[in-house]
Parts: sequence; structure tokens; C-alpha cells
Amino acid sequence: MELVIGIDIGGTKTKIGLVDKEGKCLEDTFFRTKEYPDIDDYLDKVVATIEELKDKFNYANILGCGIGAPNASSKNGTIENASNLLWKGTVPIIKKLNERMPMPMRIMNDASVAALGEMLFGNAKGMSDFIVITLGTGFGSGIVANGKLIDGFDGFAGELGHIDMTLGDGRITGLGVKGGLEAYVSATGLKRTIMYMQSKYLDESRFRSIAYNDLHGEDITKAAEEGDPIALKAFDYTAKILGLALANFTAFTQPEAFFLLGGLVNSGKWILDPLHTYFEEHLLEVYKGKVKLLSSGMEGKTAAISGAASLIWESHTDEY
Amino acid sequence: MELVIGIDIGGTKTKIGLVDKEGKCLEDTFFRTKEYPDIDDYLDKVVATIEELKDKFNYANILGCGIGAPNASSKNGTIENASNLLWKGTVPIIKKLNERMPMPMRIMNDASVAALGEMLFGNAKGMSDFIVITLGTGFGSGIVANGKLIDGFDGFAGELGHIDMTLGDGRITGLGVKGGLEAYVSATGLKRTIMYMQSKYLDESRFRSIAYNDLHGEDITKAAEEGDPIALKAFDYTAKILGLALANFTAFTQPEAFFLLGGLVNSGKWILDPLHTYFEEHLLEVYKGKVKLLSSGMEGKTAAISGAASLIWESHTDEY
Repeated sequence: MELVIGIDIGGTKTKIGLVDKEGKCLEDTFFRTKEYPDIDDYLDKVVATIEELKDKFNYANILGCGIGAPNASSKNGTIENASNLLWKGTVPIIKKLNERMPMPMRIMNDASVAALGEMLFGNAKGMSDFIVITLGTGFGSGIVANGKLIDGFDGFAGELGHIDMTLGDGRITGLGVKGGLEAYVSATGLKRTIMYMQSKYLDESRFRSIAYNDLHGEDITKAAEEGDPIALKAFDYTAKILGLALANFTAFTQPEAFFLLGGLVNSGKWILDPLHTYFEEHLLEVYKGKVKLLSSGMEGKTAAISGAASLIWESHTDEY
Repeated sequence: MELVIGIDIGGTKTKIGLVDKEGKCLEDTFFRTKEYPDIDDYLDKVVATIEELKDKFNYANILGCGIGAPNASSKNGTIENASNLLWKGTVPIIKKLNERMPMPMRIMNDASVAALGEMLFGNAKGMSDFIVITLGTGFGSGIVANGKLIDGFDGFAGELGHIDMTLGDGRITGLGVKGGLEAYVSATGLKRTIMYMQSKYLDESRFRSIAYNDLHGEDITKAAEEGDPIALKAFDYTAKILGLALANFTAFTQPEAFFLLGGLVNSGKWILDPLHTYFEEHLLEVYKGKVKLLSSGMEGKTAAISGAASLIWESHTDEY
């Protein structure tokens, strides 16, 4: 039996699992990324975790190891200046991990990994042109055109969360980009919009008595369900900007579909219903009615692990 | 000797030529597109023109015919709803031309054709990731990633002139897009900005006594050279928006270079100097200093013909 190691490096958790050729994660585990501020300690822990997992599959042939991480450069095998990770500067993670565990290895931006996983194992099977958007704490993106992930000149393509749509006069992202999409369309962006709507309107709202630091995404969804006018306005505004952004992205690569993943999507119809309307409204005539907005076909909890493993599976199966 | 027919269909002129495998246009001619409002008359004229050209190269083996045109769909072989052409709706131009002249034929968006020409014959030789921007009456774009032109789901990718960077609150393009880039960054956009600067500021300017319809690009360049404050402000504003746009595009496919083509580029340093500054200023940290702004390596007058021919040469030469 052939298996691939999939690693998802997140700011909070590092998830590791063993993935078969159908993308199924047979065994998985995790540990807290922040407990290892030193990259060498961290990689020792990664290797130890993998050894434990492998013990349960002694008979398996491990083909390699795929890694999804924020700010990863696939071409350099590095993680560079990741704002949500403790290791600063440029981390040559593939080189360091390969020294500990020689085998084929690849790393890629987490959203690009999600796109690859969707293409090999999920709802993008058979598609040549699509874009995955991850709406979590931030705004990530993985772009596929002509059947291939777009990497860019040195592996940093697909930073759509930092596209400015306000002619340089909008909210500031974590990376200092004025008007960057991520400052509007993300879990954090939604919280900021709750603030903005309280500044703009005088409606009564449950949020008048909740501080920014105490705001949670689920509460905003719940408030919308109860008809809270600030929550409703915030969702509409978020959907409008996302709709406009996706219409802009369509003019770039004309994808067959967008896949929307991540926490913000859990707000369901509050974000998705107005999104569909704004999106179609802003599409160029030539694109109208042609671009689908879809959800992921990957299993939630282990989607990121299977996606990471697809970096290796991609080159191992004839049918792809 | 092997040759390829290259056709550049423009709103004003149709240029036709015979192109060798080095991209050199050996013979070329043109006629006025607008004199043929009926597509069948037009294609008869195209075929007659080609026959004349071919007479001079009786010994040549014609490999096929490549066409560059506005609003062309490479996948459908059509021109669809082109605002600058007289033929309305969907024109199945490849089918119709092939009936008259059976041979391998391909059509593509004019800016994409420019990108392909640049890759085969011009300054983008050896590059896998770059973007061509054409700044004429409108704003066109051809995007190459992973060494391939991005076509999109049904051949309409690369409409970057209709990307809205104003959250739906800006100038309106010819296609009705609010805030579309083309309304700012193009020969027409520059004229509109001359109007805008006269509304915003009270500076004395030669343009106070020139009506919109009498404005020409060269006059604006000349005024800038003479220090006209409205002209200087207009160029700075145009460069700022283009700089922001190119920084946004970089976050999409991370090109190695942008190639800037077309009439607006003839304004030289007045647009290019501030452009370099604004572009670098707005790039994400991870891209700074890595993306070149270049000019075309194609011979001016016949560049579009050679580009069109590259659609056929692309599949005929091993070395590409």
C-alpha cells in the first residue's frame, strides 16, 4: 500500500496525516505550532509525530511528504515572513526537514494546496480553470489555469487578499496594504465591518454592548438570524465587496468556478445569498451566467492534510 | 520556405502580412476595416488581399493563418460583441474564413496575441510568467503563466481593462463597468483625466481653451514638456492608478515582467517615471524589486501581424 504524508502548518495547529491515493486521510493527529518557537525543535517534533503515525502502517510504502503553509514559496522550498508564524525571516524548511527525513518533499502556499487537493480529490475534478478562495482569519487564494496551479515567477502568486480595490484609500491589512481585500472579506474583516456599520448608522444593535475583542463570527451569524440590523448590513457589505472582487478576478483568468472555503462560509445564506446577486451584477456581460460559486468537496477536518498530500500524489498517478 | 499569414483586425485598419519563422514580416499591406460593414464582404476582401500577397511568394509553403482581434474567443473561433467593430453579436470568423481558404487557423484576443508574439519573437523569450498590457484607445492585456497563455474557461480571460478598483464608485467604461481601469488608464482615460483635473484644480492651463473632442494624446505630452500643471497632474494620476493596478496584478500571477505597449507609452517619461515609483511603492514586500517594467521587442509597424502569425508558428517549431 502506498501512502503520502500530508502536513498542514497553521498558526495555531500543525496537522499531520497519512493519505492514500484516493485522498483519504487514514490516520491523523496534531500538535500546537506555537509551543515550538525554535524551528529546529519544531521540525524534530514533526519527525517524531510522523514516526508515531508510520508505526501503525509498517507495511506501507511512503512516497513522500507534502506541506501546506502560509507564505510558502514552492520554488524556494521556504516559508518567508509569515505573519502568523513565530519563525521570522526566510525558513528553508524543505532543506531542514529533508536532512532529518530524506524523501521527496514539496511545500506550497496553503490556499494553493487547497486548490490542488480540490482538483485531485474534491469538487474541481476535471476542471482546468478555477480559483479557490479561503476565508478564515485572512483571505487566501489558489489559482488554477490551463490545468496547472499558478506559482508565479518565484512561487508567490495568488496573494489576492492583498489586492487593493479602493485606489489606495481603504482599510489597512496586516501586511500594511491600504484597501487590501483581506481587511474587508475575512473573519477579521467582518468584525471590522461591524465597527464600521456602528459608525455609519444609528440602528440599535446587540453589538452596541459588545467590544471588538469580544466579537466572534458565530455571534454575528446568530445576530443576523435574529434580524439585527448592524449584522445584516455587515453581511451585505462583505458580500458586496467579495462579489465585486470575484467579478474582478473573473476578468483575470476567467475561471469555470470559484470554490469558497473557510470559516466565513459557515455564515451560510447571510453571506452567500447576497454574494450571488452582487457577483452576477458586477460580471462583464461576456461572463454572466457562466461562472459557478461552489463549496469544497473535501472532508472538513482533514481537507488540509489531504490537500498537502496531493503535492506528492499529483506526480504519482497516471490518471491525473 | 515556410510562411504564416498574420492578420491584425483593428477597428480602423486590417493589417495582413506574411511572416517567417523568425517572426519577420516579409511583406505586408492593410485596408480600412470600416469599409466592409458586412462580414462576408469583409472576408472576401481578406482572402483577395492574401492572394495578392501570396503571388509574391509563389515558392512558399503557407503553414496557416493566425488572427488577432478585439473580443476574440480562441476556444470558439469567434469575435463576440466587439464594441469597436461594425459586426454585431457573435461572428464565427474562423468557420467562415476556413470555408473560403482551407488551412490551419487560429484567432485570439489582440493583447493575448501580442503576448504570444513577445514570447516567441520579442523581449519575453525564455520567460514563463509575464503580462502584456496594451494602452491604446482601450486597455488590453495578455497573461502568460507557467509558459502558457491564459485563455480561461471559454477563451475570454485577460479583460484587465474592466477590473474595477473603486468599489463600484468610479468612472464608467465603454462596457458600462463602473470604476473600470480602462476609463482611467488608456488614451481615452488620459483625456478624461485632463477634464477631471480641470474640475479639481484652478491652475491655468492650455487645456482651458481646448474642448474634449479636440484633445489629442501628443498635445498632452507636449503640454507636459512645457510644464503645463494640468498635464503634469494628469500624467501623475494616470501613472498612480496604473502603478496600483500593476501591483494588484502582481499579487495575482506574480509575473517576472510587465510589457507596456501602445500609444500611451509614447508619452515616455511623463508616464513611465512616476509609474515606476508608484508601482514599487504599492508592491507587497515579497514582490518588491523583483518585477520588471519592460517595453516591446517587436518591430513597431508589423508587431501585431507577427504576433498573429505566432499563433501558428507556436505549434510548428521544435525550439519553442
